[in-house]
Amino acid sequence: MMRAIVIDNGVSLRRDYPEPAMMPAESIVRVRIAGICGTDLELAKGYMGYRGIPGHEFVGEVVESANSALLGRRVVGEINAACGACRACAEGLGRHCPNRTVLGILGRDGAFADYLRLPERNLIALPDSIPDELGVFVEPLAAAYEIFEQIRIPKNRSVLVLGDGRLGALVAMTLTAGGYDVVIGGHHPERAQRLGIDVAREKDLNDRFDVVVGCTGSSSGFSRALELLRPRGTLILKSTAAASADLNLAPVVINEITVLGSRCGRFAPALDAMASGKIDPRALISATLALDDGLHAFDEAAKSSNFKILLKVS
Amino acid sequence: MMRAIVIDNGVSLRRDYPEPAMMPAESIVRVRIAGICGTDLELAKGYMGYRGIPGHEFVGEVVESANSALLGRRVVGEINAACGACRACAEGLGRHCPNRTVLGILGRDGAFADYLRLPERNLIALPDSIPDELGVFVEPLAAAYEIFEQIRIPKNRSVLVLGDGRLGALVAMTLTAGGYDVVIGGHHPERAQRLGIDVAREKDLNDRFDVVVGCTGSSSGFSRALELLRPRGTLILKSTAAASADLNLAPVVINEITVLGSRCGRFAPALDAMASGKIDPRALISATLALDDGLHAFDEAAKSSNFKILLKVS
Repeated sequence: MMRAIVIDNGVSLRRDYPEPAMMPAESIVRVRIAGICGTDLELAKGYMGYRGIPGHEFVGEVVESANSALLGRRVVGEINAACGACRACAEGLGRHCPNRTVLGILGRDGAFADYLRLPERNLIALPDSIPDELGVFVEPLAAAYEIFEQIRIPKNRSVLVLGDGRLGALVAMTLTAGGYDVVIGGHHPERAQRLGIDVAREKDLNDRFDVVVGCTGSSSGFSRALELLRPRGTLILKSTAAASADLNLAPVVINEITVLGSRCGRFAPALDAMASGKIDPRALISATLALDDGLHAFDEAAKSSNFKILLKVS
Repeated sequence: MMRAIVIDNGVSLRRDYPEPAMMPAESIVRVRIAGICGTDLELAKGYMGYRGIPGHEFVGEVVESANSALLGRRVVGEINAACGACRACAEGLGRHCPNRTVLGILGRDGAFADYLRLPERNLIALPDSIPDELGVFVEPLAAAYEIFEQIRIPKNRSVLVLGDGRLGALVAMTLTAGGYDVVIGGHHPERAQRLGIDVAREKDLNDRFDVVVGCTGSSSGFSRALELLRPRGTLILKSTAAASADLNLAPVVINEITVLGSRCGRFAPALDAMASGKIDPRALISATLALDDGLHAFDEAAKSSNFKILLKVS
């Protein structure tokens, strides 16, 4: 039995959850630290009808594995567990495998527990130079780096990051480290300013931009992003809006906008950026709470005054 | 006074509409023939709150112009009348000029009348080899060619044209002429089959495609297109859905779809394709009616059994 935060018609903390059983080509990881993401908050509200343990940002220690090189290692893990046999997998796009499970999001228990299970090939040993509270950011930072894998943005383009929460801050850090001069727009300039990040109040934005990265997590952010784009501009959609909404696509056609959906990314560029010190997202940590305080941690993560809430598990 | 079809709380045929007055750098064109487009039908239902004469597909004869080279010439006309002074115009994108008027669509009376007015620089003399009933297709065909101006689709990609109406048929013709092996999906396979175009019933489509060109003109077409796309696929949105609708953008993010809005195009490639015989859209003509029968023509254009309805004006 183990401790786990469980979504099942609401969120609860359980102490009697069965530990994950070993399976071929998979490994068991004792979770050390985990991060709460906007997706976790949405799942708790019913997004995707998820039932089970949430959590997909973690650092842990491999305690059971057929791969002796992994045993005892501190690891992070790519969250999409692909089948390895389909066309997407053959193209190296396991993140889009139609048969995939996704850690703490789709058909696979996640990281807000004492132990988790992931395929061996998903695990990446963490260099000693990267402490737990930094390594836990590799998954969301990889999602920010995914933008560069999908699109080349010329350096002279004006870029707006719309949304000043966890995701918006990481995307802004990533673009800034990539040499772009970004404007950030959001509803909570005072929160970001505590970190020395300059955020414009979204309603005060007047200019039109070549590129808008949508990190608001709200469906109204889509229409607002379209208003803030130049004709032939690009909207990079990073956050899945919680629900479907009444949206008008006519501006996309009339202004010939490109809307680019962008989700998870490869871990390598994010790990490199953190190992080299190019990006240090630890400033985003608002609090680190124990797993036993997990429900309180969810409440804290939902507060607009907070950025990242971490769960210390072991 | 002249004859004109007028949208003003409904559609009417008037015989007392004032003729367009000459303005600097503009020319007066006597309309010879005009085509009814899905946008005209939407405008008649209130789309964009348009008041005035609709119609933006035409061939006419220049009867008044400061440019003697144009006088008496048979012409077609680019429909976006740009300011020539803004950033978009400086970049050669007058079609996206924020100060533009658009023939029969935005702030400028259109072609369903005896006369229209357009800037001199919008007019293009039609070669003698292109008869009126072919030249009238240059505007919608240019919109289909706009796809190639915006995006390079590798030849080995699977392409679905979703929607088997006027626009879908022109887009399919254009892609086929460009060397793509396209599948067309729609609700009216029998109509297209009369032209020798093979159309799959939309509900029978099972495969997933690399590229879907959305030509349905309905908001439900957006969600259906997303279902029919492979992860990382591209949805080219050609038709402005009539109204905003309840849409779910999560699949765009989860599957990292690119949605590319695509509107009007340059006339040159479309004229070349028609002059060389590479594309002959005349098979799409369902009927040619007199301007005096304009209201009846609107009814005919709205029937799903018809493709293109032309208005013979002079």
